[in-house]
Amino acid sequence: MASGKINVSVENIFPLIKKFLYSDHEIFLRELVSNATDATLKLKHLTSIGEAKVEYGNPIIEVKIDKEGKKLHIIDQGLGMTADEVEKYINQIAFSGAEEFLEKYKDSAKDSGVIGHFGLGFYSAFMVASKVEIITKSFKDEPAAHWTCDGSPEFTLVPHDKTERGTEIILHIAEDSLEFLEEFKIRELLTKYNKFMPIPIKFGTKKEALPKPEDAPEDYKTEYVDVDNIINNPNPAWTKQPSDLSEEDYKNFYRELYPMQFDEPLFNIHLNVDYPFNLTGILYFPKLSSDLQIQKDKIQLYQNQVFVTDNVEGIVPEFLMMLKGVVDSPDIPLNVSRSYLQADGNVKKISNYITRKVADKLKSLFNENREDFQQKWNDIKVVLEYGMLSEPKFYEKAGDFVLYPTTDDKYYTLAELKEALKDNQTDKNGKLVVLYASNKDAQHSYIDIAKEKGYQVLLLDSPIVSHLIQKLEADNENLTFARVDADHIDKLIQKEEETISKLSDDEKEKLKTAVETVVPKENYTVQLENLDSKAAPFIITQPEFMRRMKEMSATGGGGMFGMGNFPDMYNLVVNTNSELATTILNSPEDAQKDLVKQALDLAKLSQGLLKGEELTAFVKRSFETLK
Amino acid sequence: MASGKINVSVENIFPLIKKFLYSDHEIFLRELVSNATDATLKLKHLTSIGEAKVEYGNPIIEVKIDKEGKKLHIIDQGLGMTADEVEKYINQIAFSGAEEFLEKYKDSAKDSGVIGHFGLGFYSAFMVASKVEIITKSFKDEPAAHWTCDGSPEFTLVPHDKTERGTEIILHIAEDSLEFLEEFKIRELLTKYNKFMPIPIKFGTKKEALPKPEDAPEDYKTEYVDVDNIINNPNPAWTKQPSDLSEEDYKNFYRELYPMQFDEPLFNIHLNVDYPFNLTGILYFPKLSSDLQIQKDKIQLYQNQVFVTDNVEGIVPEFLMMLKGVVDSPDIPLNVSRSYLQADGNVKKISNYITRKVADKLKSLFNENREDFQQKWNDIKVVLEYGMLSEPKFYEKAGDFVLYPTTDDKYYTLAELKEALKDNQTDKNGKLVVLYASNKDAQHSYIDIAKEKGYQVLLLDSPIVSHLIQKLEADNENLTFARVDADHIDKLIQKEEETISKLSDDEKEKLKTAVETVVPKENYTVQLENLDSKAAPFIITQPEFMRRMKEMSATGGGGMFGMGNFPDMYNLVVNTNSELATTILNSPEDAQKDLVKQALDLAKLSQGLLKGEELTAFVKRSFETLK
Repeated sequence: MASGKINVSVENIFPLIKKFLYSDHEIFLRELVSNATDATLKLKHLTSIGEAKVEYGNPIIEVKIDKEGKKLHIIDQGLGMTADEVEKYINQIAFSGAEEFLEKYKDSAKDSGVIGHFGLGFYSAFMVASKVEIITKSFKDEPAAHWTCDGSPEFTLVPHDKTERGTEIILHIAEDSLEFLEEFKIRELLTKYNKFMPIPIKFGTKKEALPKPEDAPEDYKTEYVDVDNIINNPNPAWTKQPSDLSEEDYKNFYRELYPMQFDEPLFNIHLNVDYPFNLTGILYFPKLSSDLQIQKDKIQLYQNQVFVTDNVEGIVPEFLMMLKGVVDSPDIPLNVSRSYLQADGNVKKISNYITRKVADKLKSLFNENREDFQQKWNDIKVVLEYGMLSEPKFYEKAGDFVLYPTTDDKYYTLAELKEALKDNQTDKNGKLVVLYASNKDAQHSYIDIAKEKGYQVLLLDSPIVSHLIQKLEADNENLTFARVDADHIDKLIQKEEETISKLSDDEKEKLKTAVETVVPKENYTVQLENLDSKAAPFIITQPEFMRRMKEMSATGGGGMFGMGNFPDMYNLVVNTNSELATTILNSPEDAQKDLVKQALDLAKLSQGLLKGEELTAFVKRSFETLK
Repeated sequence: MASGKINVSVENIFPLIKKFLYSDHEIFLRELVSNATDATLKLKHLTSIGEAKVEYGNPIIEVKIDKEGKKLHIIDQGLGMTADEVEKYINQIAFSGAEEFLEKYKDSAKDSGVIGHFGLGFYSAFMVASKVEIITKSFKDEPAAHWTCDGSPEFTLVPHDKTERGTEIILHIAEDSLEFLEEFKIRELLTKYNKFMPIPIKFGTKKEALPKPEDAPEDYKTEYVDVDNIINNPNPAWTKQPSDLSEEDYKNFYRELYPMQFDEPLFNIHLNVDYPFNLTGILYFPKLSSDLQIQKDKIQLYQNQVFVTDNVEGIVPEFLMMLKGVVDSPDIPLNVSRSYLQADGNVKKISNYITRKVADKLKSLFNENREDFQQKWNDIKVVLEYGMLSEPKFYEKAGDFVLYPTTDDKYYTLAELKEALKDNQTDKNGKLVVLYASNKDAQHSYIDIAKEKGYQVLLLDSPIVSHLIQKLEADNENLTFARVDADHIDKLIQKEEETISKLSDDEKEKLKTAVETVVPKENYTVQLENLDSKAAPFIITQPEFMRRMKEMSATGGGGMFGMGNFPDMYNLVVNTNSELATTILNSPEDAQKDLVKQALDLAKLSQGLLKGEELTAFVKRSFETLK
């Protein structure tokens, strides 16, 4: 029997790192600047608890390009390393410095914002560098060390005369990575990954005007001096307390996040929780863009102020993916698949927390300034309605702030709507009938008729509205929704009284025959009704159930299988009490046909069904009668 | 001066593998079955070149669940390992067995389809197993070895009495991964990743009926036997020669790829190249779905018959992402970022090759059966038009097969179109004017008028058509496109002859005033024209340039910045030679107004502009005149 230790051959660890650890070469700069930040924050922590007897001061991190020498420098003023520490942290790969550090200072380090994985991150330098140098001077009273390695496992480690505390990493950029010597490229990377890191990062200098001296002569020329160009904001809004921030601060931060966008956010939600998980962030409700696709992938995910990704799928509830802003949490596992992420308990809790915070914020906005909330409704409704359909916890809370606007710009909550309609729109079976339109223009004549009856008509025009009303009906007894053109208004809300017919049964039969000879049976079911004599003589309606099922099937996830392919079915309601009905009855056969044809065309016009050749013929005919 | 070797501490390599190498735990099965396939193919190769003096036979791979024992077995009949080889390939992590093998048998191994990275892949087993055993017997005359490891770096290696050649991997599934003992789960994974791997994979057994014996008695009952249930197709269509495949074979393979889909592909393109890169595959043009989003991510990427991903962004040209099918290439770097992929020279060559093959196939389909090609045009046009806009190499070839259909279902290539129209539709300035409609219904009256003049009208109804015609105009001198409603037809194609006006200048001035009192200036520019007396009296037109720019701006990537927000601008063309013009002139002021109002409404109807309140009023008024 043999036993032993599995041996990891060192010649092969570099290709491994190159190939697997970092698929994106540009990550190296994020890692090195993270390490520099880490080293600085560690020093801050050690001085604060008295373990390091040095002045912390105002350390910065500097990134410097030496184009001629083909070198990139990353210089920090953090705690530095002794030669022994270089041996331990750099030469022993996969020995995580930060982990050991955390272990040692567990409790006191908890809030110091230590970033992590020194060691492995450092080696990403070899993705772009043919040789790497470390010149480092510890805060401890020991000589500086100079480490050099060309990407093979061989290194050299010698003393160095560096006297300032901190670490300088020098990358000798490889021939295939010369792009990383371009100023614009480094600026782009720093802006992408390090824009909000907690230690100021200097990249080059900029000119700044000196203040004009009081005794300046008349021909005084403004003098300029070179000052450090700090590329990041070490204290972004989300790390502050909401009570310390004004509306203007939130708007400014929005512009900082999206400098190329010129819209203003509608409102923001500040996330801030530290138990049972740590999460901060600010979400913004943007003005709705017409292209919903473009609006995705706008929320940025950070970990301790280091940018990670702008794909927050699985972390932020799906209905909130159209929002913008920042989420910062060290508790989200990275480098795992999306499906794993969705199964992770912590991540699920984070998602639920965000949902709850958004609901709470909406409720308070509604309560504090309903007028303003109503004005924003059109921009936020799709998100909220989608949330009601996809997140049960959000649906539960939606009653407090979700609005149902009418075609006359009144806004009701569901409870208010029921109250407002119950006297006038309860039918003879005790059902409260909510009338709605999906388009004010297209359904104008139907809305008009309903309003003449004193009914209120909602304007529900989101693409997913058929799913929403289906759900509302299921959850609210005796509540039913009907689009204004689903039937004649007296049929939509049936009351006790019946209108009496002017026509005898015999005349009705004759009328029906006259109409049916002209109207194509496959598309229309003729339906005689004793309506008000002033009501339109011909009306085309489309039954609610079929239409809604078809819409649900078209927008996915509902309705009935294959419904989308069903032809549209319409009813042609003929008002037996209209003057035109009598006129048709009393006309000779030819005139009857012309009258029915014209009346059908007019009814089709109202329902948007007169098109193409039929419309052209109608217009031509009508021009003829004009001249 | 000190120097030394960087040391990788072994205690830390397992968490590293777990964390970084495989974000998706389920990958372990793909890796182990790949290794088994690899070992089998290696043996095949060694026997074929005479290095292994054993019978290759018909080896299979078996995957077996032992639910009670909480174990998963993967058993192959490949070349196996001696104890020394286990020591070398398993205990020395990151030492790639396949690489060394390839090095040794470089030339002869080139076409043997060896998959790769034995070694690292194996360790993914520890993502789901608390203990892993290897029982392996080499094809060489040496005793079998039995390796056991519990995920710590300690292992044991002892002899074993296994006598059949090959390797058995036994995973003792960890408590947090018990799902991998479920038959449906393993079946799902095998189907996802190994459906087309080159060695038969047995997973359980199935019943198969025995043939009825000739002397069977009358009450003979069919007898069943258990046979191996082979879960994969080791010889998928794309690995065969196109000449060996019938149309039916291609359709069957489509159903094999997409068993849950019931559509039939329109046609297929067989990819097959081995220099300068290796690529095989079959792409299918599907019937266009109304939801373009759903159609993405349908092409599957394989490497040597192992499924890799269904995201082929960057590999397949963007305009072909709506296609379905399979691409198999060992030359596509994985584990790299998409931006890196797009910069990779090999990948760019692959993308260009696919573009060229698709263009060649389209050309031959067009030439072989134009009738059939025309019938499919509606389903493929969006892909092709998008390709013309996004891939210059495709645009160059498009002249050979891209079609321009008319509203009368004639189909022209661009060259044919120019030839067909040149006599009748060249204007007095020598410009060939191509008339088109975007919607047969909505522009019916305008199409009618153009056809009455003997002109042909194209039906161009893709969403990106404004971009396409912009490009065609730029690249074809003296070719110009105009939508049929862009102006009155006599203005769209101006000929030498002028129609004389019936009205004097004075009468015209009066007419114009009468019209302009009624027609709102902000929306319409009134334009008097001496048209045919039979032409419509009022026509609303929308100038081509503005409309096209707006459309381009709305569909992205063109037009002018901010154009999308411009209001729609229309012209109202009044035909001075129409009878209605005279009638208006000769009417008293009140009647004039009514006539103009009604004529404007009719013109708006033809252009789809009479809506909402205006339409309701028009219909009501028209019903009044009927009764």
